[in-house]
Amino acid sequence: MRDYRSESLENYLDDLAAKLPAPGGGSVVALVGALGVGLLSMVSNFTIGKDRYRRSEKEIKKILKRSEDLRERLTELVEEDIRVDGKVSRAYNLSGATDKEKEVRLQAIEKACKEALIAPLKVARYCVEGLELARRLVQIGNVRLVSDVGIAAGLLEAALKGAELNVKINLNTIADRNFVEEKRKNIGSLVRNRLKIKDEILRESEDKIENP
Amino acid sequence: MRDYRSESLENYLDDLAAKLPAPGGGSVVALVGALGVGLLSMVSNFTIGKDRYRRSEKEIKKILKRSEDLRERLTELVEEDIRVDGKVSRAYNLSGATDKEKEVRLQAIEKACKEALIAPLKVARYCVEGLELARRLVQIGNVRLVSDVGIAAGLLEAALKGAELNVKINLNTIADRNFVEEKRKNIGSLVRNRLKIKDEILRESEDKIENP
Repeated sequence: MRDYRSESLENYLDDLAAKLPAPGGGSVVALVGALGVGLLSMVSNFTIGKDRYRRSEKEIKKILKRSEDLRERLTELVEEDIRVDGKVSRAYNLSGATDKEKEVRLQAIEKACKEALIAPLKVARYCVEGLELARRLVQIGNVRLVSDVGIAAGLLEAALKGAELNVKINLNTIADRNFVEEKRKNIGSLVRNRLKIKDEILRESEDKIENP
Repeated sequence: MRDYRSESLENYLDDLAAKLPAPGGGSVVALVGALGVGLLSMVSNFTIGKDRYRRSEKEIKKILKRSEDLRERLTELVEEDIRVDGKVSRAYNLSGATDKEKEVRLQAIEKACKEALIAPLKVARYCVEGLELARRLVQIGNVRLVSDVGIAAGLLEAALKGAELNVKINLNTIADRNFVEEKRKNIGSLVRNRLKIKDEILRESEDKIENP
């Protein structure tokens, strides 16, 4: 099976746009999250080793370690989301000719749809962590790259919001009310402060750009 | 010279995060714009040919044609931004040993920095066009994929805001005041309504998710 992580940007974009089961919005939000934390790693790498930022060097190294960890996890989810989408499609394609088959099919769909929530919930959690890193990096990172921290904040917020939409539309297909309520609460608490944090980072980034 | 469009997602992300001159924030916002309009093409492709949406088919085909055109242009800018960044670096690296050389170097920097604004301004314009397509698609596109239109709107707004930050930080390096004022006005008018349009699309997307 092909793994989109080793596909070219062009192929990924072509398959995204096409009438194909994958990749779709779930994989894209993971990729945008990975691009966001990738920018944070870049800014950290261009801060470490500079005299002017020596006082913060230890903290920046910690931020870099965390952003690289998040990047690896989010990049895995670019592919993971596609794999799980395949399971949902296969469940819907099961035969429902007899009552017994109908029952098996419905249970397979419910199971696959529940599993399909894991990836967007992870994406959301990692993007929240990325935003926390950006909030600090905009204060102590290399000021020449402060626009990149602002860009990262915008991308992470957009990916987080996108993950919320994915979770919500998937919840519509699940019958288990307790499960639905629990996941609705999970995503609700993850997205709650996203705009406030993003705006705070953007304000500081723009302030430093306008008063260099 | 390598072309990042044919590089794997993994390589692109690795080089982004590393202490390398490229790719950086400018290339990333072009890529996120391309992902946004790619999602709009996907939704259009899954709407065309369905009985339920036959009345809008002609309009959706027009949206698809435009979103695919924007996707091609934004994908080109993923690479274009890297090429122009290289020019800026080479100008800064020119020798400034004599007065004559200093003058040549400063003029080369000014010229390269002016050229470096072209890509983010194009990204901004294409993202504005993408948002306009999304505003219509959320109304007439396949409702099963309405979350993907919402995701696209968030990504296009974030890419547009990112392009604005790129323009603003680049303007700091340019001496020509008339040029700076003109470009500041250009980007200002492009970003003006972005949050209003994004919120409008997100509201309609979430409304349709919650009342399926």
